[in-house]
Amino acid sequence: MHELRERIAREGRNLGRGILKVDSFINHQVDARLMMSVGRELGRRFAHAGASKVLTAEISGIAPALTTALALNVPVIYARKTKPITMPENAYREKAPSHTKGCFVELLVSPEVLRPDDQVLIIDDFLATGQTISALARLVKRSGATLVGIGAVIEKTFEGGRALLVSQFEVPVEALVSISDMSNGRIVFGE
Amino acid sequence: MHELRERIAREGRNLGRGILKVDSFINHQVDARLMMSVGRELGRRFAHAGASKVLTAEISGIAPALTTALALNVPVIYARKTKPITMPENAYREKAPSHTKGCFVELLVSPEVLRPDDQVLIIDDFLATGQTISALARLVKRSGATLVGIGAVIEKTFEGGRALLVSQFEVPVEALVSISDMSNGRIVFGE
Repeated sequence: MHELRERIAREGRNLGRGILKVDSFINHQVDARLMMSVGRELGRRFAHAGASKVLTAEISGIAPALTTALALNVPVIYARKTKPITMPENAYREKAPSHTKGCFVELLVSPEVLRPDDQVLIIDDFLATGQTISALARLVKRSGATLVGIGAVIEKTFEGGRALLVSQFEVPVEALVSISDMSNGRIVFGE
Repeated sequence: MHELRERIAREGRNLGRGILKVDSFINHQVDARLMMSVGRELGRRFAHAGASKVLTAEISGIAPALTTALALNVPVIYARKTKPITMPENAYREKAPSHTKGCFVELLVSPEVLRPDDQVLIIDDFLATGQTISALARLVKRSGATLVGIGAVIEKTFEGGRALLVSQFEVPVEALVSISDMSNGRIVFGE
């Protein structure tokens, strides 16, 4: 996606240790129009996957997952990191290590919304180590639903997440923009 | 909004203590198409407010704020509850009591995205006691920006938030659906 890549090149900042600051258009302030384009393109790539639901993790996955769900005309579920009082006790739970927070985060989904007959497309803002997406995919398996694809807005290919996901789950993995190197303050685009 | 009201009547559940469970279409699973209608209607009501940014609080405000921002063709900012490593140290901070969690939550916005020349429309999923929205409005004041309006998807009129906001900030307050009574397990719609 040329528009997204240009925006990262112009506004993205390499904060070191693989941290890409894109909070002026992706994950604090969100460019709503760009996010619609992101959703349309992810929707186009998974148009034939037969998804009945889009699944993401709160917080920063919500915007691209919502616009992808719109493009596919299906509902979107965001996994919660803390159990709201409205969520039943029998929620599905999986843990994922957070390398930015240095701890484990739990992801919870209610069985009321994720059902065995669902065909689930996972969407997140970043594909890096793949740990969060792997936890989402395990939630899908746990519910008895079928995982049909994994999509990310930005992939950091040097963190190896795609290989992990492909080895664990046999589904197509798509990313709109790939970054292949962030060493020495650079932001190098792949492909 | 007839469609939203019908959906609340059909799927909403009164869990007691003023807690309305709408997590099958608003705030866990999100009906993407309905959320677009919500954004279009909020956008229509504030079409002449001159907003340059929409501001909300993570997590459940993100979906309606994003679709409202789309309708108004402006960016959306979601205030964070914990400081991400990408946020500068001089972030604006305000505290709000959370009556569902029984503690205070902090809301943070980066001065990089909220600027003195911004005209800000606040959007959230619920208007109840008004405490979260009041904290967002104080963030706007703190940044030097101008608050131009406050919109909510669902208002619980019996919790008095609107009166608090109108007394503190002199801006229009709009809600798409009003609930006037949740005593004795009921869900009574206002107006």
